[in-house]
Order: sequence, then structure tokens, then C-alpha cells
Amino acid sequence: MSKKPHIVIIGAGFGGLAAAKKLAGENVDITIVDRVNYHLFQPLLYQLSTAVLSTDDISYPIRAMFRDNRNVELFMAKVTHIDGAHNTVHTNHGDITYDYLVVAAGAKTNFFGMENVMKYSYGMKTIQEALHIRNHTLHMFERANKQQDDEAERRRMLTFVCVGGGPTGVEEAGALAELVAVQRKEYPNLNFDEVSIKLIEATDKILPMMPPNLRQHTINVLESKGVEVMINTQVADCSQDDLTLKDGTVIPTRTVIWAAGVRAHDVAATIGTECDRAGRIKVGPTLQVPGYPNIFAIGDNAHFEQGGRPLATVAPVAIQQANLAATNIRHLVRGESQLEDFVYHDHGSMATIGRCQAVVNWGFLKIGGFFAWCIWMFLHLLRLEGFHADVTVGTKWMWNFLSGTRLGRIITNINLEDEA
Amino acid sequence: MSKKPHIVIIGAGFGGLAAAKKLAGENVDITIVDRVNYHLFQPLLYQLSTAVLSTDDISYPIRAMFRDNRNVELFMAKVTHIDGAHNTVHTNHGDITYDYLVVAAGAKTNFFGMENVMKYSYGMKTIQEALHIRNHTLHMFERANKQQDDEAERRRMLTFVCVGGGPTGVEEAGALAELVAVQRKEYPNLNFDEVSIKLIEATDKILPMMPPNLRQHTINVLESKGVEVMINTQVADCSQDDLTLKDGTVIPTRTVIWAAGVRAHDVAATIGTECDRAGRIKVGPTLQVPGYPNIFAIGDNAHFEQGGRPLATVAPVAIQQANLAATNIRHLVRGESQLEDFVYHDHGSMATIGRCQAVVNWGFLKIGGFFAWCIWMFLHLLRLEGFHADVTVGTKWMWNFLSGTRLGRIITNINLEDEA
Repeated sequence: MSKKPHIVIIGAGFGGLAAAKKLAGENVDITIVDRVNYHLFQPLLYQLSTAVLSTDDISYPIRAMFRDNRNVELFMAKVTHIDGAHNTVHTNHGDITYDYLVVAAGAKTNFFGMENVMKYSYGMKTIQEALHIRNHTLHMFERANKQQDDEAERRRMLTFVCVGGGPTGVEEAGALAELVAVQRKEYPNLNFDEVSIKLIEATDKILPMMPPNLRQHTINVLESKGVEVMINTQVADCSQDDLTLKDGTVIPTRTVIWAAGVRAHDVAATIGTECDRAGRIKVGPTLQVPGYPNIFAIGDNAHFEQGGRPLATVAPVAIQQANLAATNIRHLVRGESQLEDFVYHDHGSMATIGRCQAVVNWGFLKIGGFFAWCIWMFLHLLRLEGFHADVTVGTKWMWNFLSGTRLGRIITNINLEDEA
Repeated sequence: MSKKPHIVIIGAGFGGLAAAKKLAGENVDITIVDRVNYHLFQPLLYQLSTAVLSTDDISYPIRAMFRDNRNVELFMAKVTHIDGAHNTVHTNHGDITYDYLVVAAGAKTNFFGMENVMKYSYGMKTIQEALHIRNHTLHMFERANKQQDDEAERRRMLTFVCVGGGPTGVEEAGALAELVAVQRKEYPNLNFDEVSIKLIEATDKILPMMPPNLRQHTINVLESKGVEVMINTQVADCSQDDLTLKDGTVIPTRTVIWAAGVRAHDVAATIGTECDRAGRIKVGPTLQVPGYPNIFAIGDNAHFEQGGRPLATVAPVAIQQANLAATNIRHLVRGESQLEDFVYHDHGSMATIGRCQAVVNWGFLKIGGFFAWCIWMFLHLLRLEGFHADVTVGTKWMWNFLSGTRLGRIITNINLEDEA
């Protein structure tokens, strides 16, 4: 066995990968533990769910990323419990001991305890969930097309509701509206006046991190695409047939996409230290977990306050924290006792609302429209793993832009025996 | 309701599509009935199963193909029964009446009645099956990598058996060998001497449609890639742990890919006329089904003898028969009583054995090697539906060729609750 320090990183999201890359050059052994064998580029998940891109375009094999780093291994397993007292990570495929641990397990959908919403709505955090949305949405058009006699049932099938006015909900609603525009050309016997897309937000703000004029711009663009934007609207219940609002309104729909919040992966809480309401570990200024100087928590698993508020669960926070955690682990490995404190540098945010439309909020640059969309596209291509993906994604976007069609409209999850 | 003749086409494979395209310009209404909403380019299915291409690269939405033909509709449903006496197709989503019917439902895997083989081996006819093979194969490497203590179990996981020496079996075995070569670079702790790929063929011939020198060339290339080619070898039984041969040999393996034969889709036999042992309808010289002058059977659903032997179940036969059936339907629609007889023009065959290696048998041109592979690539790109797919598939092939990696190695079917 190697005598090199063993660093275990839970999760191969933006944070886990950044930490692994930064530490790979050190004289250490690194084990990345993840339930899947790929890194998922979550910002483009909504494009998988709306048939613009394919699975492989937005996911990249973890091993391929560390092909040249023989000291980086993948252990594909589900973490069940972190035993900080014995420096051990328990998984469904056996235990792993560590010298240093980075908890970067990411987040899962937060249904806020609503059982029926969890059961009947669609989350948007994994490849599987995005494919379910794609398959189900496309299937609704096929089924509505065969439902020539029952208008109410047809309208129910053609009503799509996104819950949550953050970037995910806005992007999903915009992309769905454009998918409908593509479908419209190919269903000669379907009345598209029966199609309805709604974006529901509990508070009074869509894209709260944007300035008021860009928030209004977002609403204008969504409405021009045919999305009904409903703010100050809270969900009360959900069934296979309907979505019920707090004010008693019943929306007949078979498709509720839930993008109203996330909470930390359960594994973070298993260390046993103090967590916030979203399950995030309250970390110290060096990102160490209190009481466990060799455990660091980052990204969606860390509660870190700056300016009196906890940082948002977004990729830039995870990546900056990963770099700081890696730096501090390097200090510890080298026997340097002085660790560094984390400071988040906010470079702003952006969101796309559909083809040719995005909003960008970067310090002095606060714009919406076509130019913002170009910036959004360029930056997302830059950040995608692998030149190969740049070419295929770039080609598909170009194709989408020029031809106005979407070739990912493949329904793959059909149980061929039971229904079609 | 329209008074135009209603043509129903069962199946959107090569045959069904060719018939629909040829008839779309006529003054008729066409309904394509298929269980799925896409055309699958089956010749490249093995590349999906070996992580070269993605689902969307080799499947094309049927509606997108007929976007400009308002008289062509898709009815997504599973056909349960054809009632020729009442000109009705029964499906799990209701009945459809027709004036003319084209039976082009394609083929399914033939397990020759071996229950255990059907249960434990992997077929290779659908997107789902190809994805199962990809996910399972990649998963075996991850699981073997975690199985550091049990060599026998590790070897069982790393033994991959393809059954059937036709093009599908040969292409799959060659592509698997290349996938292993890619994996080798990314598992520093796995001993690749434990990996074994076997191609099993019951008769004494690999690629029987090829001349002897190209058959030998194929075997040489496969062996140079590390594939063990076993001819005159019959399968007796299969379990989750082993494949048993007729001579009593037991091969420990968790992966048996079954490409040993096909039979017609069950729906062909429901008309009730005479079928051959493979379930294909014995059609007349005009491809009409005996007793039903308004029903035509083509491709994998038709038994048509030429030169004393039934034609093979390959795409060129299906496409040529589709064109003839469409021509004859046009004659009938126009009230022309004289129908044409089918004659198959054999333009030869080809198969790829992996990167830079293929065999081509076209009349005078009988070659194997790099140039044959270039022909194969060029023709397959030409035949793919959609310019968009040409670009992405071409990019991926180029990438695969230059970098020697495969970026489709994404395990997507993991049941996150049960195992990893």
C-alpha cells in the first residue's frame, strides 16, 4: 500500500472536480467517490430535458478527465455515512479510509416535505430526471394527438407547469415554449391553442439576483414566448391529474416540473455537526468542518456566511471553495500549520430565457437580449468539459438556431409491453 | 373526414419509411404506426452499445421527416392484430381502418426458444437494448475494479461474449475490443490480462456472405484486436453467471450479447396467411399477401424467394421492396390493374470490424482494410437521416479516430437506491 496521504472527495460535481484537479499534481492519492461515472454539466440539463442536447453532450466520464493522473481513482458507489471519528467513508460497496476528506456531494431537489409533490412532480437535478421530463413531455403530445374526443383531457396533457422562478425554472419554461413552437409544425391535427405553459413562483420576484429592469425583461420575453408567469403563487398539493395552489385554484396538468429549491445531499448531515435548514454543514472560515480539521465541506454542502447571509448554492461558489479547500489540504499535507480563510468573489450571474435571449448581471454590465445570449453561449461552451463536446454542442446550437428544429425529440423510456 | 385513400404503414424502419416517402406525394392520406416516435438507424446500433455514439445520433424523429407532408401522420401505438377481413389494424390505443396496408414491422431477436438465453443475454435490436449493453459493460469494469480480492469473479465480470458471426456480432465484438483498449488507459489498478472477448458462431463461417479471403481477413483482424473467434460452437444454456456450450464447456461471464438471429415481428403472423419458420409472410410476386390484394408485406416481414432461396433480412431488400410496394399501391389507387413483380438487385454487402478496418463485397470489388473502412464510413454518413447527424457523427468518428477515446462512456441506468 501507498504511504502517500489519501484524499477522498465525495462527489464529482463542479466542486469535487475542481478540488481533484488542483490536488492531482501533489504527492497524494486521490479517490473520487460518486454514484455515477460521469461529471454532469448541470447548467445545461434543461437543454437535455427539452430535446436540444443529448446525454453525452453534457456528461463527461470522470476517468477520462484524470487519464493522465495515475494517482486519481474513481470509486463508483453511494456514500451512506461519514464516520469522522474513524476517518472512514461508508458506502454500499464497502468502506474507504481517508487522511483528508472533501465533502462535495452536491444537492438534491427540495420538495419541502410535500409528499405528493415529490411523488407526482418531476425534479431537475439528474440525467435520469431530465430524460424523464423529455420523454414524458414528448409523450404528452403524442397522446393528446390520439385523444381527439376529449378536449379537457387533451388540455390537461398539453399544460406544462414549471414551479420556481430561479434560473432553472426560467430556463426550463423558456426552452419548453420553444419546444412547443417546434412541435407546432409537425402535428397537423392538433390545436396548439390548447397548449399552456405556466411558470409559478412563490415570492414576488423572478430571477431575484437580477436587477429590476432585467427581471422585468425576463418576464416580458417569457410572456412573448407564450409562458404565463404567475408570481406570489404558492403550491399546496399535486396529483397525477392536477396541481392545486394555496388559494384553492386547481390547474389540470400531467406535467409539473419542480425547480423550487434544493437541499444538501443527506450525506453531509451524517458527520453529525451543526447543519442549517437546507442540510448544509456550518463550516469554519477555512471551510473545515468544526471538530474535524481533516474534513472540508464545500459548495452545496457548506453553509458559509458572508456579508451576513449564507452564500448561494451556485457553481462559482463551489469552485472557489474547492480551490481554497485544496489549498488548505496542501498546507496540511506539507505540514504548514497556517490555513487560509475563504472569501467569495462574486462575478455576477446570468440566465438564458431561450433562443437569442438571456440576461447578464456582471457588476457594471447589466444587459438583456441577443448580446447577453451570445455571452451566455460562449461562456457555456468554454466551461464544458472536452473540446469534443464543444463541437457537438456548438453544432447542435447552430442547427437549432438556423433550422428551428430539435432533433433530440426521441422518446426512449417507453415500456413497449404496456403502452405506446 | 377525408375521402382520399388511406394508406397505413406499420413500422418506421428502412422499409416503412421508404414506402411513406414514395407515397407522400400522392393524393392519399398516410398513417405510420410505430411503437416509438423515431426512425432508428440500426446499422450503427452497435456504436451506441459501445459508447461511440449517442442515442440521438442514430435516431430521427419520424414527424420531423414528414414535416412538409401534411398528409402523413404518426400514430404512436403497438399493433396487436391485423384484421384483413375488415381492413382494420388493432392497436393498444384503438383501431385504425385502412384502404391499403404495408406491413413493415421489422424483426426482433430470435432466441430459438431458449428461455434462459432470452432471460440472461442481451439482444441488440432496440435503443433500449443497446443502452443496456453499454451501461452493463461499463458497469462491469467499475465493479471489477472494486473486486480486488476475488480473481475468479473479476474475470467473470471482464469476460464478454458475442454470439452470432453475422455483421452485428462481428461489428459488436470488434467495437468491444476497441472499447477495452480505451478503458485500459483509465484503470490503473485493473489487470487487463483478465479481460476476454469471445465471438461464438454455430456454423463454420464468420460473415457467410463474404468470399473466403475476406472471411479469413475478418478473423485475422478480430484476433489481432484480442477477440477469440470460436466457430462451430453452439450455445446450450445461459445463466446470470455462465454461458454453457453444447460440448459442455462452461464460460464464466456476466455478459452475453445475442446476435445469432432474428425473426419477424409477431404482428405479421396475425393476418393468418402462411408464414415461414422465421415468422415471415409468404408473399406473392407483387409483394401482396395472398388473399388480401390491399395488403403488402415487405422487408423482415416478407418471405420472398429469388434464385431458389428466400432473400436475406437486410435493409437493401426492405428498401427495394418498399419502393415496389409503393409503386403497386399507386397503381391500385389510380385504378391501374397491372401490378409489377419484385426483383431484388443485390449490390453486395459490407461490414466494419473496427477502427480503420472493414470488408466490402460489391461484385468485382472485394476488399478488406482501410480503404474498405473509408467506403463504409462514407456510405453510412450518406445514409444517416439529417445533415445534423452527419456533422455530429462525423465529428465523433473523427474524435474517436484521432484521440482514441470514447466520450459516450456514461452509465445512465443506475438504480441509485439499490446499487452503484
